[in-house]
Amino acid sequence: MNAPERVDAPWSREEFEARLRAGATSYHIHHPFHVMMAEGKLTKAQLQGWVANRFLYQIAIPVKDAAILSNCPDREIRREWIQRILDHDGCNVGGVHDEGGIEAWIRLGEAVGLTREDVTSLRLVSPAARFAVDAYVNFARRQPWQEAVASSLTELFAPHIHQQRLDTWPQMYPWVKPEGLQYFRNRLTQARRDVQHGLAFTLDWFSRSRELQERALEILRFKLDVLWALADAIMLQQCEMEIRGPKA
Amino acid sequence: MNAPERVDAPWSREEFEARLRAGATSYHIHHPFHVMMAEGKLTKAQLQGWVANRFLYQIAIPVKDAAILSNCPDREIRREWIQRILDHDGCNVGGVHDEGGIEAWIRLGEAVGLTREDVTSLRLVSPAARFAVDAYVNFARRQPWQEAVASSLTELFAPHIHQQRLDTWPQMYPWVKPEGLQYFRNRLTQARRDVQHGLAFTLDWFSRSRELQERALEILRFKLDVLWALADAIMLQQCEMEIRGPKA
Repeated sequence: MNAPERVDAPWSREEFEARLRAGATSYHIHHPFHVMMAEGKLTKAQLQGWVANRFLYQIAIPVKDAAILSNCPDREIRREWIQRILDHDGCNVGGVHDEGGIEAWIRLGEAVGLTREDVTSLRLVSPAARFAVDAYVNFARRQPWQEAVASSLTELFAPHIHQQRLDTWPQMYPWVKPEGLQYFRNRLTQARRDVQHGLAFTLDWFSRSRELQERALEILRFKLDVLWALADAIMLQQCEMEIRGPKA
Repeated sequence: MNAPERVDAPWSREEFEARLRAGATSYHIHHPFHVMMAEGKLTKAQLQGWVANRFLYQIAIPVKDAAILSNCPDREIRREWIQRILDHDGCNVGGVHDEGGIEAWIRLGEAVGLTREDVTSLRLVSPAARFAVDAYVNFARRQPWQEAVASSLTELFAPHIHQQRLDTWPQMYPWVKPEGLQYFRNRLTQARRDVQHGLAFTLDWFSRSRELQERALEILRFKLDVLWALADAIMLQQCEMEIRGPKA
């Protein structure tokens, strides 16, 4: 007879949440390009490059969310989740008229001196940025919808980086038209609401076993890698870099 | 009435082929990491990192080729194209026994001092390398098979880089076991045969209009970007880099 397999008990809900939140240390807020951004060290062209590349991520979000809807047979989940698509694409539903996050990002582009067409044509987007963003969309298309929900949890860390931009840009980049920052203000509220739903679901669904909890951490790591690789792509496109030697 | 649209005549077969071959100037042989490799400037760990990351590309090739088969209703094409899968996966068909290119790459890994498990576990692979390679596989899955055939045409430039490694490694990296170089030797022959088939097909299929010819150039550019982004990912994983300033 084989020895029984060792089965670890699931972490408590609190322990599991703490482990998810520990992903903050790998969030792209620590990426050299984002550190430069927060320190006011980017040139106008570099900040424009970031806005233009990052637009690809913005337009991928509702496509990713639609993939989740299309894989999800649970109407209650869909009724919550669809709000994310409305937030990004904008809507004209009942009495509510919302231009949406994608439009707000285009206005951010205009506020940093790009034209609408510079942004929407995607002509400034680096190929590697595309590969990173596509990896996220393809993950949502191909993996179970519960995993795609968990992959959204980098939202846990997003209010911090949005707040940082609101705090630093007016001093660091006074030439950016202030109305362009509306996207970040909107997301402070929206991301906090989204993450409550996504986090509660993830804590429930993946706490059915330790193995699932570990899978959720792996998924969050993947998503952190997507954001980091996107920042790498923008850095390589926008900065002269020198190879100093082998990695220590 | 609208003015008639201007329709450019297709380039001649020779002109179209010359434009495809001009992609050589963007081939990853010119990437800083590959230049360092050819100049003998990589450390053992860096060369190992390249072999380990690039293994992901090696195992993606037959998956990409199977996607082409699965999208292609033309038996004659499939009968030619399947040879690529046999070459990479190896085969035991009739009297022919071939270990295949993936096995040869694992032996290259052993020749540079990695274990088989280091290579096959993919644990050394950078996330951004994965995003670039997956972009190629997803392209072959989702686009028409004729476009996926055209995307293989970076093979036009491969014999040069394989020959370069065969020429330089014995002097530059004398610690690499010589039998590890068999992969490059095999590909010198295989890539030349493959490219004859892929190139002839592309010249025929895409020469039906100038628009299609331009699409083929765009596809080849995409594939060159995949290889360049893969090299970027390996460089960022393996090298200490310093931001010197904004891109000129």
